[in-house]
Order: sequence, then structure tokens, then C-alpha cells
Amino acid sequence: MQAVVFENGSVSMVERPDPRPRSGEALLEVRMAGICNTDLELLKGYMGFSGIPGHEFAAVVAEAPDHPELVGKRVTAEINLGCGHCPTCLTAGPRHCPNRTTLGIAGKDGAFARYVTMPVSLLHEIPDNIPDSEAVFIEPLAAALEPGQQLHLTADMSVLALGDGKLGILSACALRHQCPDIVLAGRHARKLAIAAAQGVATRRHDSHDGLAAALLEEFGRFDVVIEATGRPEGLAHALDLTRPEGTIVLKTTTFAPTPVNMARVVVDEITLVGSRCGNFKLATAFLRDRLVDVSPLIEAAYPFTEFPQAMAAAARPGALKVVVEF
Amino acid sequence: MQAVVFENGSVSMVERPDPRPRSGEALLEVRMAGICNTDLELLKGYMGFSGIPGHEFAAVVAEAPDHPELVGKRVTAEINLGCGHCPTCLTAGPRHCPNRTTLGIAGKDGAFARYVTMPVSLLHEIPDNIPDSEAVFIEPLAAALEPGQQLHLTADMSVLALGDGKLGILSACALRHQCPDIVLAGRHARKLAIAAAQGVATRRHDSHDGLAAALLEEFGRFDVVIEATGRPEGLAHALDLTRPEGTIVLKTTTFAPTPVNMARVVVDEITLVGSRCGNFKLATAFLRDRLVDVSPLIEAAYPFTEFPQAMAAAARPGALKVVVEF
Ligand SMILES: [Zn+2]
Ligand SMILES: [Zn+2]
Ligand SMILES: [Zn+2]
Ligand SMILES: [Zn+2]
Repeated sequence: MQAVVFENGSVSMVERPDPRPRSGEALLEVRMAGICNTDLELLKGYMGFSGIPGHEFAAVVAEAPDHPELVGKRVTAEINLGCGHCPTCLTAGPRHCPNRTTLGIAGKDGAFARYVTMPVSLLHEIPDNIPDSEAVFIEPLAAALEPGQQLHLTADMSVLALGDGKLGILSACALRHQCPDIVLAGRHARKLAIAAAQGVATRRHDSHDGLAAALLEEFGRFDVVIEATGRPEGLAHALDLTRPEGTIVLKTTTFAPTPVNMARVVVDEITLVGSRCGNFKLATAFLRDRLVDVSPLIEAAYPFTEFPQAMAAAARPGALKVVVEF
Repeated sequence: MQAVVFENGSVSMVERPDPRPRSGEALLEVRMAGICNTDLELLKGYMGFSGIPGHEFAAVVAEAPDHPELVGKRVTAEINLGCGHCPTCLTAGPRHCPNRTTLGIAGKDGAFARYVTMPVSLLHEIPDNIPDSEAVFIEPLAAALEPGQQLHLTADMSVLALGDGKLGILSACALRHQCPDIVLAGRHARKLAIAAAQGVATRRHDSHDGLAAALLEEFGRFDVVIEATGRPEGLAHALDLTRPEGTIVLKTTTFAPTPVNMARVVVDEITLVGSRCGNFKLATAFLRDRLVDVSPLIEAAYPFTEFPQAMAAAARPGALKVVVEF
């Protein structure tokens, strides 16, 4: 099969033998896959990754030795593969298994390939009314919805989504169902407009510092700030914008150590909550029932054979979602 | 009156006019006061402090214009003085008032003086069976108990108090009432023994890294880590010792920015909770009912006139509580 490989900072298209499903697994024929910021980081060498990336996808089940009834179904999959027998797997599930692999991110070949194998237990069938181009958002939308699973968000809370990248936009559009006054703030009018069209209040400023100052001036400090800037310095602004005893949800995975004014965190008794993956069932229902419109987030679609060009498009500053299709 | 003044990094004993209580305030005659790590930081210039420090004390009410019934009572006081009319004061109380002063820490002369004034609303009467030397621990014990107010701690949780300074010892002794298996870890046999004598499991190692490695080997990762090392690098060890989806309570106020591996916080979905002051009623009950024995934490008592010597003793590496008495 044709597959994308990241190695030593470069992207190549290679021929690889088709993977074979083991017991409990399905062989999936990928139809569409999304390029994520994590993929850009992997290419830069994050986690020492080399192999086939890709963790946001829609596919069709080609083979499922133990579950023939699945063949032909359109699916996506959760991305953390647990070992299945450690205490974490046996109690909390695979997401935090210390021996886990992660699809296209760590120890498990991903979906930027004609075929990929996945455990049947991680598959989620895609409802018919969700096109492939939206199904690739199930994984990031689940992550965007996760703060509402981790925190008890209520309607009167003042909530700020800081950063108008894909995750900031998705977070604001997703969480406005719990917090109708959520504000999305960033520097890009074009991106903010996507959320505004879905009923989200947005605020824009040319500079990060100016944005923080204007938000503070208009709203005071927020009960909850979703830090989705993607920049290490974003946390300092989030701290300035969070009220005492408030909460910051950390969505930014920066690999450089982030300097934090911990005295401020202690004195103001602020809570910082790390937030990564989310609930696929919830995200699927949101797309099925059109509670969030992800379609304006698609910047471009490339044929899979033009993956290097797709990757370059995804890497452009300010790019939204770039997908590849087979 | 005689008072201690910190200015430009030096300690001096000065003569000051006696303060006068305003409406709603009491004039307190200080009997005993404790020197805290925060005082050592203030002397180094933290918060640009200059003035009379001191925020852990036992006193007698000398005058209380609106509340004559209080005269003669032995009291301590909460240390955050709110403005009384902002939205924070009117709803959540003075602790996080943006206009607050803090006794002996910011904008309000403290208890290292013969007299101090305080709002009557912040006074707590000291039960007769708590001697002054233990009453000076009400403020730090309240802070040590605070994680149990912020988090829903349950008996089966694995909890680590990291750092065997005063706050680590107090935290372990206080929180073992909710989490009987709490472990206190540090480098000083003499200090750990204080908690061990009260039923706390303790672990010691000569080096910080060795301690973290030994704890990980023996216990795996903890559900909750109380970071009370007082060192900026303590958070990195706390992160290594916290399980995915676990919680770190930040007690260390370091004034240098702390480098944090935020990718780890996000990937492991860890919660960091800043924790500062606490509930005086609870701490007073703990001392009254002898649920924690703070007396072994007193390293030395000096006459107030020898404050500079007391301060030097408190600044010695590994020092426990030093108090001054009138
Ligand atoms: Zn992703
Ligand atoms: Zn496992
Ligand atoms: Zn103190
Ligand atoms: Zn106030």
C-alpha cells in the first residue's frame, strides 16, 4: 500500500506491505484523514516520532476476522490503544494506560495510508448523515468538548476560549451549549467569523497583549479560560484573565517548558486542568445532530498522493483543517 | 510601641506610635508571633514589602470601640482584609478581594509589634486549652488543611505530601484524618520523625531525585501530591509522581517563574490546584481537640526584643518554627 512516512524531519510517500488484522482487530480502508497540529509537531521531532502518522480519519471496515458483521461499515476510532491487562486498562480504560500506543503518534502506524488496523473495541460507527469530511473532526471535536466533561460548567459561568485556531474555534462552538456567553478571542477575523456564525461572541485584536488587555477591560476576569493558543506564552495571558479560584483548561501541548508564575497560581488559588482527548460518542452525536458546524473549518482537500503539498498547506501560519482523500 | 520593620533587606527594631482602632476594629496586644517562610521571602524583597511584618500570632483584645465585650479575650485573626464593598467581598468574602491588604504581607502592618489593629470580623477567639505557642499555628494549620476543603479527598486515595518543611509536616498530619495512608517524603530524619510520631508514613532520601525515584518504585504514582517543597523544581518531581488524571496541590510560593512541562500536564490530564489560606474554624478545632500536635514544630522561642536573632534562627536551613514572645 501507499503510505506517508515521517522520518528525520521529512515527509515521504513510500510503498509498505498492507497491514494484517490480528485477533480482535479490524483492517480499515481509509477514505479521508485530517492533518492536525500534532502532526506538524511530530514532523519537527516531537516524541522522537518516526513512522506513519495520522489519527483523525474516516474509513471503511475491509476485514474484521472476529466481527464479520462490521465489514463495510464506515467508522472512525479512538486513538489510545491500551495493553488491556494493566490496572489502568482494567479499571479506567486505555486512555492513560502506561503501556499504551497512540495511533499515528506513538508506537502505532496511523491513518495516512491506504490501510490501517485498529482494535474493534475502539471503533465508532459514523452515522450516515455525517460526511467523511466532517467525520474526520470527531476526534478533535471530542477533545474540544472535553472541558465540559472535566468541569461542572454551568450556564452563568463566564468562559473564555483563548486562541482562534481550530481547537479554540471548536471549543467555543462546542461549549456554548453549556455556557451560552462563552467568548472566543484571537487575532484573525476570518477564523473568528466561523464561530460568530454559530452564535459565539468573539473579540479580536492585532496583538496578543492588546487582546488580553481589551478582554480584561471589557469582561474583567473569567471564571474559566480555555487556553488554546498553541503558544507557550499563552498561559501567562490566561492567568491574567482568570479570576481568583477560577480554572484554566490547558489545551496547548507545547514541548518547550512553559514558564509559569506559580506564586500567582497559589495566591489566587487557581486550578489548572490538563485536557487532551475526549468522548467520541458525544462528539459523534454533536455532528449527527448538527450542534456544531465543522464544515467551515476545512481549508482544503488534497488527493492522498499529494500529501506533501497538503502538509505544506497545513503548515502555513493561520491554516485551518487540511484533509487528504483517497 | 516597639515594632519590627523590614526595609531594603534589613531587619530593625523601631519605636512607632501605638496604632488606634477605627470603627469596626479592635486593638490587639500581641502575646506571641510566629516567623514564617513568607517573612523570610518578604525580607528578600518579595512583593516590594516594607513595613511591619508578622501574620501568625496570638493576642489579647485591648480595645474594641464597637465591641467592648471582646476586651480581654485571647484571639488570633484571618489575614486578608477586604475592602468590604466590591463584588468579591459582597459574595465570596475578603480572601480574594482585588483591593485587599494582607496582614504583615501587603499594605497592612503586621503582628511583629506590641500592638496591631484588626477588623473585629476577622478575629477568632482562641479556646482556653490552646496555649499561645500553639495558637500561632492556627494560620499555617488552616493552610495545611485547605487541600481537604478544595478537593474531595477520600480514604482510599493515595496521597503524598512532598517536602518535610513546616507546611509539609502540617499537611501530612492534618490530611491523614481524611487519607490515612498519606505519605510524607523529605530529606530530614528529624523532621519526618515529627509526623511519624503522629501516625504518618514517612520516607526519606538524601537527594531530591533519589527520593522521587524511591517513591515511584515503592508506591507508583499517587492520586494526589501536595507540593510543599518550597523549591521551584519541586513541581517537576510532583509531576513525575502524579498519576494520569491525578491532582497536584501547589503550596509552594516561589517568586521565580517555574518551568513546567505543560505537555505532560495536558497529555496526562493532570489538575494543578493553587492553595493558599484556609479555614480558621477548622484549624482551631483541630488544635482544641488535639487532632494535630504542633508543639514539636517549635524550634525556639525568643523574647520579642531579640527579634533579629529569632529571624536569623528561622532563616537557618532546615529550621522549624521560631516564635517571639512578649
Ligand atoms: Zn489531533
Ligand atoms: Zn494497560
Ligand atoms: Zn505564613
Ligand atoms: Zn473587596
